[in-house]
Amino acid sequence: MAKEIVVLGSTGSIGRQTLDVIASYPEHFKVAALVAFRNVELLAEQVYQFRPRFAVVLDSTRAEELIAKVKDLDVEVFTGEEGLEKAVTMEGPELVLAAMVGIRSLSAILLAMETGKDIALANKEVLVTAGDLVMERARALGSNIIPVDSEHSAIFQCLNQEGRVEKVILTASGGPFRQMTLNEMANVTPEQALNHPTWIMGPKITIDSATLMNKGFEVIEAKHLFNLDYSQIEVIVHPQSIVHSLVQYNDGALFAHLGPADMRLPIQYALTWPERWDLNSKVLDLATLGHLDFETPDFDRFPCLKLAIEAGRTGGTYPAVLNAADEIAVESFLNGEIPLTEISNVVKNALDKHIQVKEPDLNQILEADAWARKEALAFIKAK
Amino acid sequence: MAKEIVVLGSTGSIGRQTLDVIASYPEHFKVAALVAFRNVELLAEQVYQFRPRFAVVLDSTRAEELIAKVKDLDVEVFTGEEGLEKAVTMEGPELVLAAMVGIRSLSAILLAMETGKDIALANKEVLVTAGDLVMERARALGSNIIPVDSEHSAIFQCLNQEGRVEKVILTASGGPFRQMTLNEMANVTPEQALNHPTWIMGPKITIDSATLMNKGFEVIEAKHLFNLDYSQIEVIVHPQSIVHSLVQYNDGALFAHLGPADMRLPIQYALTWPERWDLNSKVLDLATLGHLDFETPDFDRFPCLKLAIEAGRTGGTYPAVLNAADEIAVESFLNGEIPLTEISNVVKNALDKHIQVKEPDLNQILEADAWARKEALAFIKAK
Repeated sequence: MAKEIVVLGSTGSIGRQTLDVIASYPEHFKVAALVAFRNVELLAEQVYQFRPRFAVVLDSTRAEELIAKVKDLDVEVFTGEEGLEKAVTMEGPELVLAAMVGIRSLSAILLAMETGKDIALANKEVLVTAGDLVMERARALGSNIIPVDSEHSAIFQCLNQEGRVEKVILTASGGPFRQMTLNEMANVTPEQALNHPTWIMGPKITIDSATLMNKGFEVIEAKHLFNLDYSQIEVIVHPQSIVHSLVQYNDGALFAHLGPADMRLPIQYALTWPERWDLNSKVLDLATLGHLDFETPDFDRFPCLKLAIEAGRTGGTYPAVLNAADEIAVESFLNGEIPLTEISNVVKNALDKHIQVKEPDLNQILEADAWARKEALAFIKAK
Repeated sequence: MAKEIVVLGSTGSIGRQTLDVIASYPEHFKVAALVAFRNVELLAEQVYQFRPRFAVVLDSTRAEELIAKVKDLDVEVFTGEEGLEKAVTMEGPELVLAAMVGIRSLSAILLAMETGKDIALANKEVLVTAGDLVMERARALGSNIIPVDSEHSAIFQCLNQEGRVEKVILTASGGPFRQMTLNEMANVTPEQALNHPTWIMGPKITIDSATLMNKGFEVIEAKHLFNLDYSQIEVIVHPQSIVHSLVQYNDGALFAHLGPADMRLPIQYALTWPERWDLNSKVLDLATLGHLDFETPDFDRFPCLKLAIEAGRTGGTYPAVLNAADEIAVESFLNGEIPLTEISNVVKNALDKHIQVKEPDLNQILEADAWARKEALAFIKAK
């Protein structure tokens, strides 16, 4: 029987690649619901191709348009938060691929777990802002959270050894500005920053990769996903993005997961886990590559990485503030309002001013998020 | 209860390191028997330290000496083939660590399996010469063969993934003469050849590493150990010997096992398998290493690698001839009788002249071995 899947964020980069993977195994996968933010053109195309039972456009101003486009099909169209809820709680699917950016899918993911679904998690913000809460619920409900991020998927795949995990090493490409000075970085344009050397991704995550904030988020995610202490997580810069991450065990054995920079690999693994199905991906040729390079990350030139790890260590509502302030700052940079190097200042200001709530509930997290956005906007405006 | 172990070749390089590992877990391991070729001084010391029930010196001319040295202890001393048989068939131990060089332990290993023991295999010749036979017996008897070689241990440790193994990539340091021309190689002395860049090993295997014959043997071993086709086995030169080998799965995911060049790691894993115990080994720091290099092996400058893979592919008694002729040639090189570059000619001559026996039994393998030794000696003499 085909595995039914709900795809949150189907028109985004990960969503589209997920549908690619699903299309390559038409007898084994079935799309139960597609959820997109506002790109109804692409969503309607996807509905035609994958024939889900539900199609959801979050932006309710686009609902009529979607209804008109798919009126000949046997699909129920929903909109807004209510539509999102319908998709994640529907009967049938066992897996939700969560690829919507931001924390708006947080409640939806909790709801999905409560209705017995596993989560293929491509969203960063959920674990960064509410890692304790989400993992606690997952454990209580027996829901599996399977990482889609290439680094976390790599770690996840290296964790099936007997023995005790000593350390996890997250690799970072170092981004397009790995060798730039801070002064040079102050002058880069959004176009330059959007040109990532090894991975093709959405704009927000590409900028976060350029500042290494993304790697900081990944440290926080790894802590929660794999129940680690921050002292067990290291970051190493590896410009080729071939070694996706490493896990070290108690006898010193170090396992690495390598592969081409192709998101279909971790996406497919998340969909087929615990099995591993054929994938016609580019084969890695180490001799042609010649060498794999590694260096220590520079916290001075990439203060966002340090801020993120500190916010993670401090915990409580700090990571939510980190994430929210960064989201505002990145948007502001992409709009040409602040230089790239100002992102860390926006985030640092919010973290400095924040009054922590320890062990926050969902509401307190959302409040911290809202507060940090305001604070970040005010800080940018005041400049 | 402590795991009882028989150590074949206890005074050699791997044997001594095995006893180091055993000594670090005195409550979990117990040496049941020690078998050495002729170094009775060291063997007696080991008997004093580990208090085995049996001590065996293969060279019967040294038996009296050993008896005299350990007469105060509660240990039975045996000698020759009979002693070896007693050690591998004794009641109690569940594991035989086979670290005797050469094919003389072949029958002993088969006997050990027949008495219900697992084999931690550090001997190359057994699988190279009689891989089909040994693996067939192991499967029939339900005996586990756990590789001790760092490359095969690495592969073994990367094989616990769901999915289909597509390819296995054996890494080779490339030896001390990786960048030499054939002419330069013709003039190297045994002393130069014995100076391996990354691993400290016995003389025979060190020379085989310099000619890459050792890597050819490992290809044949990998074929048998992991039930692969030769087309699934690749060799890649990796001078740092940090990546011990890699395994590629059907979705393109590539798993690597990395570690410092410390044989205690694979030895301990073979002793503790399927568990993984603490080992205070040097921690690998990729950033300090800076880079890992990879290149395609040069079959022209290292003809032994090609000869070995061809002999493996052809099968039957060819690998036994390969191994025996190489043993004679290496000895001859170490005695200063032939240049390093002549080793491949000695081996090639024997392979060319050999009349293959397909699916040989133990006797036919031993006959091919004896024939090849004579042929190799005659070829060297005739020069």
